[in-house]
Amino acid sequence: MDQDPGFIAAVEEAKKGAAEGGVPIGAALVSKDGKILGRGHNMRAQNGSAILHAEMSALENSGRLPASAYEGATMYTTLSPCDMCTGACLLYKVNRVVIGENKNFMGGEDYLRARGKEVVVLDNEECKHLMEKFVKEKPELW
Amino acid sequence: MDQDPGFIAAVEEAKKGAAEGGVPIGAALVSKDGKILGRGHNMRAQNGSAILHAEMSALENSGRLPASAYEGATMYTTLSPCDMCTGACLLYKVNRVVIGENKNFMGGEDYLRARGKEVVVLDNEECKHLMEKFVKEKPELW
Repeated sequence: MDQDPGFIAAVEEAKKGAAEGGVPIGAALVSKDGKILGRGHNMRAQNGSAILHAEMSALENSGRLPASAYEGATMYTTLSPCDMCTGACLLYKVNRVVIGENKNFMGGEDYLRARGKEVVVLDNEECKHLMEKFVKEKPELW
Repeated sequence: MDQDPGFIAAVEEAKKGAAEGGVPIGAALVSKDGKILGRGHNMRAQNGSAILHAEMSALENSGRLPASAYEGATMYTTLSPCDMCTGACLLYKVNRVVIGENKNFMGGEDYLRARGKEVVVLDNEECKHLMEKFVKEKPELW
C-alpha cells in the first residue's frame, strides 16, 4: 500500500509542506475506482490556518462533491489523524483511512474503527523521518 | 443562555448565511472571560467549501491562537455539530458546546459528553425556524 498512487501523493504533499517551511503532513482523497479526488498538505504555518490540516486540505481541494463521490473512498494521510480530521473522514463517510505512521502522533484510529472504518497503519519510514526532523527543528510549530 | 453574546453572534451569523443564500448555520467561539475570539457561518454554497461549516468558520476566523486561548472556551452554534465540527471542538479542547437546536440535525453530542465536554441544547425557536425554512426552500442544498 506504500506504492498506492494515493499514498505517494500524500507523501509528495508532506514534502511540499516541508519545503514551504510548514508542518510536513500530506493527504490525498481517492475514490473507490482509484481516482485522486483531491490532495493537500497542512497549511497552519503558511496560511495561519487553524483548520487546514492535511486531510482537511485534501477534502477542500476535492471541491464540493455529491455524497456518492465519497462512497468507498480512501483517505491517505502521512500521520495519524487528529480528532478534527477523524471527524471529517466520518462526516464524508470515507470507507478506509490509510495512515503513514502513528509514532509521532496517535489520533482517532480507535474511534474510526469503532465507527466501522477500515484503518491501515503503514509505519512508513519516510513519513516518520519527515515528522521527526520537523519536531526536532521546529518544536515551536508542533 | 439564549442571551449570551456568543449565542446572539451565532444567530446573527446564521442569518447572514441565509441572506447570502447559503446554509443558515452560525457559530461563535468565546473565551472563558467572555471575549468573542471568532465567529462565522456555513460557507458551503457561497464558497463551494466542503469544510467551512459554521463552527469551522468560527475557528478559522479566530486565527491561529495559542492553546491557552481555547482553555475554558465555549463554542456556540445554532445547530447540533456534525462529526467534523465535533472533532474540531475536541481538537481545540473547548470546554463547552452550546447548541441552538438539534431537531433538524443531531450530531456528535453524545461523543462530546463522553469526551468530557459540557453540552447545552437550547431548543431555540429562531434557530429551528431558520433551518426549517431552509430545508423546505432549498432541499438540494441540505
